[in-house]
Amino acid sequence: MSQSFDIAVVGATGTVGETIVQILEERNFPTADLHLLASSESAGHSVPFRGKNVRVREVDAFDFSKVQLVFFAAGPAVTLSFAAKASAAGCIVIDLSGALPSAQAPQVVPEANSQVLEGLKKPLQVSSPSPSATALAVVLAPLRGLLDMQYVNVTACLAVSAQGREAVSELARQTTALLNLHPLETHFFDRQMAFNLLAQVGKPDAQGHVPLEKRLVTELREVLGMPALKISATCIQAPVFFGDSFSVSVQLAGPVDLDAVNAALEAGDGIELVEDGDYPTAVGDAVGQDVVYVGRVRHGVDDTSQLNLWLTSDNVRKGAALNAVQLAELLIKDQL
Amino acid sequence: MSQSFDIAVVGATGTVGETIVQILEERNFPTADLHLLASSESAGHSVPFRGKNVRVREVDAFDFSKVQLVFFAAGPAVTLSFAAKASAAGCIVIDLSGALPSAQAPQVVPEANSQVLEGLKKPLQVSSPSPSATALAVVLAPLRGLLDMQYVNVTACLAVSAQGREAVSELARQTTALLNLHPLETHFFDRQMAFNLLAQVGKPDAQGHVPLEKRLVTELREVLGMPALKISATCIQAPVFFGDSFSVSVQLAGPVDLDAVNAALEAGDGIELVEDGDYPTAVGDAVGQDVVYVGRVRHGVDDTSQLNLWLTSDNVRKGAALNAVQLAELLIKDQL
Repeated sequence: MSQSFDIAVVGATGTVGETIVQILEERNFPTADLHLLASSESAGHSVPFRGKNVRVREVDAFDFSKVQLVFFAAGPAVTLSFAAKASAAGCIVIDLSGALPSAQAPQVVPEANSQVLEGLKKPLQVSSPSPSATALAVVLAPLRGLLDMQYVNVTACLAVSAQGREAVSELARQTTALLNLHPLETHFFDRQMAFNLLAQVGKPDAQGHVPLEKRLVTELREVLGMPALKISATCIQAPVFFGDSFSVSVQLAGPVDLDAVNAALEAGDGIELVEDGDYPTAVGDAVGQDVVYVGRVRHGVDDTSQLNLWLTSDNVRKGAALNAVQLAELLIKDQL
Repeated sequence: MSQSFDIAVVGATGTVGETIVQILEERNFPTADLHLLASSESAGHSVPFRGKNVRVREVDAFDFSKVQLVFFAAGPAVTLSFAAKASAAGCIVIDLSGALPSAQAPQVVPEANSQVLEGLKKPLQVSSPSPSATALAVVLAPLRGLLDMQYVNVTACLAVSAQGREAVSELARQTTALLNLHPLETHFFDRQMAFNLLAQVGKPDAQGHVPLEKRLVTELREVLGMPALKISATCIQAPVFFGDSFSVSVQLAGPVDLDAVNAALEAGDGIELVEDGDYPTAVGDAVGQDVVYVGRVRHGVDDTSQLNLWLTSDNVRKGAALNAVQLAELLIKDQL
């Protein structure tokens, strides 16, 4: 006998929420009733699931005792308002907002630290890390045993879709205006995003770091199980609709054997290694895929103790929705 | 009595060559006759200078004894073909192509190592470094005395204009096609450049490094006068028409005082420091300007021995044409 689960997706009208629904269907997740929830503004929309349109309802009025599994794919405030209710009602909670402390809901990427789920106590709460930390964890995890990593340096070039539909529309609108020599209007972004790069994604703290950068560092350390790893992160906003790209430079204690690195990446789960001389791109390779692409595996220009990598990942799918569904699959295993 | 110089610009129809002509006029460079030279395909065009259109002629047929100063703003092959002739004719040679060995034509950025010019012997030959090395040198030069730099990590997000007019047209054409849901055509780039990032600018060698990255490392070390400085460089192609952006992370021997860094940058030549909390962009700030913009001056997320910076620079103007004209101004000083 196979068991099915009643599931709620909070934030179902966002790009990540919609993709979770799509992946539940694609992967044949044992779903009985699917409840799609959102804020009052988005309630009333509908999202397709298994050939039917499922109506999105207000999260405020929802009775969480109707479901056994909840994905939180809205902002941190929504998670903070409703996760406790969902847990109290006995639900498994999978949060994608970064709102829950990791002592309560550990950050997990199945390819890197699925063992954490085994020790998890009820109420089951787990966090799916930010798309950047997820992509980096998938690729660095199989290198942990091989390399003595001293310092990880990341410049993350992020797609606008991570900021939601309004950001996507504004990039398209600004680009069209510029190509037609119309005046540029800025609404969502505070300056020209089209044909430009923005050096800050979010509001910096007094030290100049934005929350995304701090999340990347904290979550990556936790997921890799390397709390003392030095990580430097700069998150920039690229004029790209979907797909994140990462320029990664790892400083090692000694010379690194690139053949061994390539072999470990080849063997790693959730990774597609692109052959030497070529490289993956966000749009051309990563978007719509279930793997993180890796290319440009090389030493420093004259430093064999440095490993350089270029990664691309679908920020919405691999970086968020798919990771969350993979977590759900692992968490329900014991209950089937 | 003030002396004027007869000048030749080789590669006058390129974006950098045209900008050199424009800057010679803007800065009132003591120019008598101006000879604009290019390959046979571009000969016949004309470029405006001091209210007149100057006709571009074939470089092959040019008699370099007619001029005293030559800018080489075409590809390395052109420099290699004609620089010796120009020198033999007694010309000062300023090369922007990176073709000449630095023992013969040292790399110079006035803000960083103008003292090199004083020791220069005839025939006077000097190289203006790649736009990336130039921008980085301007900003790192005033920090040399202050910081014990261990490692400089750079991800350079380069504008397509560095690759010439064809690259600029293709980005516009691809973008228009995508926004109009027309099929994408690739001619200059080998894949989609619009709304995408390409991880490699040029053809990699067997070790995976592209010439631009090797130039950046070699030239930056030379210009900073720090031959042993460890530098890691990744050059990526951004869907940006004009203006380069740099994510820079400098590892230091010990904790760094950000106030001292800000003060040194404030006092540095050719630098515009953007206030804390804000940041410059290529398009919004750097393009058309004579300075390199610096922002996001900060420590690592929890590492005070790291200095992070974000730079933007006009790759054509500040990174190339202006630097070359500044070199010319310094070289002719003794001869005036």
